[in-house]
Amino acid sequence: MRLLAFLAAFACLAAPAHAEGPYRNPDNKNPNDTAEGTYPVPYKKPVVAEIAASLQRIRGYVDSQTPTRIVHKGSGAPVTDFRTPVADAVVDKGDADFGLQAYEMGVVHAGLLKATAATGDKRYAALTQRHLQFFADRLPYFRAQEQRFHLERANSFAHFLDPRALDDAGSMCAAMMRARQAGIGPDLAAQIKVCGDWVAKRQFRLPDGTLARQRPQAVSLWADDMYMGIPALAELGRMTGDRAYFDDAVKNVLQMTDYLFDPQRNLYTHGWNANNPDAPRFYWARANGWAVLAMSDVLDVLPKDHPGYPKVMAQLKKTLRGIAERQSGAGLWHQMVDRDDSYLETSASAMFVYVLAHAVNEGWISPTTYGSIAQAGWNALSARIDAQGRVEGTCVGTTFASDQVYYYNRPTSTTAMHGYGPMLLAGAEMIRLLNNPAIDIQFRVRTYHYVPKDGGQTSYREHP
Amino acid sequence: MRLLAFLAAFACLAAPAHAEGPYRNPDNKNPNDTAEGTYPVPYKKPVVAEIAASLQRIRGYVDSQTPTRIVHKGSGAPVTDFRTPVADAVVDKGDADFGLQAYEMGVVHAGLLKATAATGDKRYAALTQRHLQFFADRLPYFRAQEQRFHLERANSFAHFLDPRALDDAGSMCAAMMRARQAGIGPDLAAQIKVCGDWVAKRQFRLPDGTLARQRPQAVSLWADDMYMGIPALAELGRMTGDRAYFDDAVKNVLQMTDYLFDPQRNLYTHGWNANNPDAPRFYWARANGWAVLAMSDVLDVLPKDHPGYPKVMAQLKKTLRGIAERQSGAGLWHQMVDRDDSYLETSASAMFVYVLAHAVNEGWISPTTYGSIAQAGWNALSARIDAQGRVEGTCVGTTFASDQVYYYNRPTSTTAMHGYGPMLLAGAEMIRLLNNPAIDIQFRVRTYHYVPKDGGQTSYREHP
Amino acid sequence: MRLLAFLAAFACLAAPAHAEGPYRNPDNKNPNDTAEGTYPVPYKKPVVAEIAASLQRIRGYVDSQTPTRIVHKGSGAPVTDFRTPVADAVVDKGDADFGLQAYEMGVVHAGLLKATAATGDKRYAALTQRHLQFFADRLPYFRAQEQRFHLERANSFAHFLDPRALDDAGSMCAAMMRARQAGIGPDLAAQIKVCGDWVAKRQFRLPDGTLARQRPQAVSLWADDMYMGIPALAELGRMTGDRAYFDDAVKNVLQMTDYLFDPQRNLYTHGWNANNPDAPRFYWARANGWAVLAMSDVLDVLPKDHPGYPKVMAQLKKTLRGIAERQSGAGLWHQMVDRDDSYLETSASAMFVYVLAHAVNEGWISPTTYGSIAQAGWNALSARIDAQGRVEGTCVGTTFASDQVYYYNRPTSTTAMHGYGPMLLAGAEMIRLLNNPAIDIQFRVRTYHYVPKDGGQTSYREHP
Repeated sequence: MRLLAFLAAFACLAAPAHAEGPYRNPDNKNPNDTAEGTYPVPYKKPVVAEIAASLQRIRGYVDSQTPTRIVHKGSGAPVTDFRTPVADAVVDKGDADFGLQAYEMGVVHAGLLKATAATGDKRYAALTQRHLQFFADRLPYFRAQEQRFHLERANSFAHFLDPRALDDAGSMCAAMMRARQAGIGPDLAAQIKVCGDWVAKRQFRLPDGTLARQRPQAVSLWADDMYMGIPALAELGRMTGDRAYFDDAVKNVLQMTDYLFDPQRNLYTHGWNANNPDAPRFYWARANGWAVLAMSDVLDVLPKDHPGYPKVMAQLKKTLRGIAERQSGAGLWHQMVDRDDSYLETSASAMFVYVLAHAVNEGWISPTTYGSIAQAGWNALSARIDAQGRVEGTCVGTTFASDQVYYYNRPTSTTAMHGYGPMLLAGAEMIRLLNNPAIDIQFRVRTYHYVPKDGGQTSYREHP
Repeated sequence: MRLLAFLAAFACLAAPAHAEGPYRNPDNKNPNDTAEGTYPVPYKKPVVAEIAASLQRIRGYVDSQTPTRIVHKGSGAPVTDFRTPVADAVVDKGDADFGLQAYEMGVVHAGLLKATAATGDKRYAALTQRHLQFFADRLPYFRAQEQRFHLERANSFAHFLDPRALDDAGSMCAAMMRARQAGIGPDLAAQIKVCGDWVAKRQFRLPDGTLARQRPQAVSLWADDMYMGIPALAELGRMTGDRAYFDDAVKNVLQMTDYLFDPQRNLYTHGWNANNPDAPRFYWARANGWAVLAMSDVLDVLPKDHPGYPKVMAQLKKTLRGIAERQSGAGLWHQMVDRDDSYLETSASAMFVYVLAHAVNEGWISPTTYGSIAQAGWNALSARIDAQGRVEGTCVGTTFASDQVYYYNRPTSTTAMHGYGPMLLAGAEMIRLLNNPAIDIQFRVRTYHYVPKDGGQTSYREHP
Repeated sequence: MRLLAFLAAFACLAAPAHAEGPYRNPDNKNPNDTAEGTYPVPYKKPVVAEIAASLQRIRGYVDSQTPTRIVHKGSGAPVTDFRTPVADAVVDKGDADFGLQAYEMGVVHAGLLKATAATGDKRYAALTQRHLQFFADRLPYFRAQEQRFHLERANSFAHFLDPRALDDAGSMCAAMMRARQAGIGPDLAAQIKVCGDWVAKRQFRLPDGTLARQRPQAVSLWADDMYMGIPALAELGRMTGDRAYFDDAVKNVLQMTDYLFDPQRNLYTHGWNANNPDAPRFYWARANGWAVLAMSDVLDVLPKDHPGYPKVMAQLKKTLRGIAERQSGAGLWHQMVDRDDSYLETSASAMFVYVLAHAVNEGWISPTTYGSIAQAGWNALSARIDAQGRVEGTCVGTTFASDQVYYYNRPTSTTAMHGYGPMLLAGAEMIRLLNNPAIDIQFRVRTYHYVPKDGGQTSYREHP
């Protein structure tokens, strides 16, 4: 081991040549081109059919892991009589233990809806439909179970019956509103009211109205809550037409940013505690993923004439610039975005790729400088979807901690559901980008140029 | 070798999963918890008895290496007749060549005194006592030797008889004053006067009064001199009650900071030359260790009503934030604090852990955000104390150089005494922290929370 | 592979000791000095004869690869009849495919002229002489070929006959003017007029006069063009005495800097597109090399009383500080200057070493802080010249791309001519530095101090 440490250290410092990897760009048809490198991940123009196949594998895996079935907790035997509740009735979580009402599943639904929209393939939305129908069908049963047995957090429908945190409410709430908008699934208005009320009215806030938590310290902010709270507020605005929700969404984007954004690095620190506002900053990748995903979701529904629109737009652009600059040489982003010796993390990378591609498609940022960044990210992500549709390399659930040793060494798992929704979003948006009629994707001098078709004339030539 | 370089480069860029290491947190009693990572160093709540055992091993090693014995230089045979000096009489330095009057030994004494204070175990202070008694007993002999033979720097007591640099004077001077304050050892007032005069009155300074050196350039500053000079000034203030010493100590903290501190990184560059004030900056870890140790020592004795108190406090906090942000994923800090590909260095890491823990214990910084950083650092340090009490991984003596290649490639050695004092300080302060009655150390959701007992209510839950 | 990835990741995080390498400083004559490290590259005071031998090997290789011969394209048989042009007559490019009129060859000539000036050895300048004589001899032939066959870019003299880009014109133009100034080669005034006109009058510019390109986007700037354009403008000023050229050169340095320089990192981003001025920044090493080389060349000929002189000087110094701070622990610089996990690149490192050494020799920057940085860089470079005089580790031609994955994974090649000129420049300037009568190079306490002989008194001693 000591020998290897020596050799590795030596290799790092003395490595005489360029990075080498197993992939060669298949778009370069000259096999003898000495100016073509090799890559540690695929580097090519992605193929729509290949992305679609990857997304289908993911969908299939999530499908198989979420049977929407009620079973007896101990035996796993199906519950068949839904007239009278029993105390041990639970939702079958499958081997992967994917929670049907977990916030990560809200992102999965967002991805499924986008995948159907991008591909026309209705199997994605059908999975959302099945989940939502299950909620409509079984909510009365679990409500009755609760009334009789008072299981509290052990009730499989606890998040719906009795939300107690943004994690319980916001992401699934936004998902239900998006499905409703798309005409997918049954009428869940009553449930949307419950979770919407939690986010808008009942969640703990700072005196200035910023969504906050009482953990880990008595008054804390988490960058994660940009996603756990803000898109739901924005969707409430769209659904109800009440601009106060938009105001709240925008206010939270801007105030969270005031507390958590580092304008020197253009990155968000994971969290903030009122009792120590000058604490060391840790640029956890997924926290930055939540931040950009939330801002992107807000811009999707915020009226363009809202006074907050240009402010949220400016903040999203600033953050995307910071994130784009920190992309690794292997296409993904590091667990700590600013630390190249931390591992490459999938869920955050997928959120970044989604938002970059989405922002290009929406015309928010330049295709010419961001298109190939999104593409390079997707290429790397594609290598993290296994044959069974499992997403590899996602950091498991992670608290807002105080030391970087914790963050660096969080394990990854294919059962960390955090990777699934972002991967569906990223793939769906990449398909949209590849099909974008306004953009011409050119492979020139061994790299890619996303050129607006109405743009000025350019001529490509390598600096020889 | 070329193959390995390739493989290592590839591994770095393509590493598919999280960092993995041999350690699992023993505080997590669930061996099947898939959300628990593995670590490259211990990650756990430290155990007081284990720390104490480590400190005793270190003390034992230093004890064995410092026989406080006079020998004939060539033969190593003991000198037995102390009536008439002989030219070849020297202090036996032992195999490790630890200088009894070296500045590193001043830090060892600081650590020994803190270790006795933290544990009640008098064996630590007894080692200091033995050294100081040896000085009192043998100083007349070496003074006579000098008068007769004019050995200059070859005289084993040269630093005491004829200090010529801050390295010769400040650290041991502060140690002697601390021992005096603690009632340890004989009366060394005359010697304190010699070294104190050197620091306060005779050391070369800039025209503005900043402690400086004539090497490597004619007018140079070293961040190291924050420790080599300033704590001695502060201790002189405490011992004499003369506030001019405090004024000088504070002035030097602030002026050194003006020359050497980078407010963008919140780190100190190693040094400064008057002839090239805009030289490239190198954030050598140990220089930053000296800086924070000096500020911490000043705050220990500076009257709270001194106008400099809040200024030194603010500067210490700023630096600790910068240092905390640069902790590695393996708990220690890198030889170049801002360069993750430089090696992990022990002595600086130990100084950082000591000052972080001390600042928490003294109420200067928040336990809730810094406690677990100190703990993670100590856990990593604990793996660098071998069975014989030797401290591994300490960079040897290092000059203020101009190129980073030199710094990156300084060797480490268990005979670099720089690691011993900081390790004693760090361990002692960690014991104090673990025993701190005002702080509740909670292991929740796989990490640590240092919660002030009088703090607000919090509820812990992992972001699931 | 997975095992190795694990081991490498583990080694990175847990590496217990300092970096180790195969080189020990031969200037330290004590083989048992435990305070002397080992290095991944040579670390020593360079020896003039060794540098000269390295430069001769490089010269020999370039000599052998540039036969200045006309051949039939298909057969490679020499063209012997130069009275009537034939369509398949081309310049024999040799195995390495070195273009005689390529911009990289302009840098080679700059290096050859400096090498003769530094060593007195006329073999370097003789190679330049041979190339220039070949141009004078064969230009009429290829002009006639063009008139008859209209080969356009396929004409071997296309850059001379019909320049269409800064790459075609500026670097060789500057080289021809420097040779003329040195009295080397035939009269090429007519050709200097063609290429000079292209740079000064015909190249596409922004409305504000900044030299620009229409690729990759319609309105783009490349940091490379600081070198491709500005030194030619400055040489035109020197040759003609017309200060308008100097004004244009200075304006371009300052305006390029406004667009491309990051004052936080003191580095240049590779390029800028008018349609997305806030694009992510990529600090490609060679782009920074071109920037400092251009500024250095301008200062070589710009009259000291020109109002732009102190501005260009200040900008060069700022950039050199940023570059010096980013030197790797192995002496070279990384392909992405700010990313320690990208490979160590030769051509940029050589440009940095040349400009650092040159700026010291010219008295622009302090020898005491920059001399040993240049030396450490040269030592590392010297290990990249093979026995046949080939330069290893140079990134091949690279376009201004939008994603960092492309940059990280560019291959290196000994036939990338970009490394040859900078290496000649660096070695020649190091010889000048080692022979500089105003500087005393001292090896003290295991590192190097470049001390101005008229400087103040210093005394060296290691922090023991």
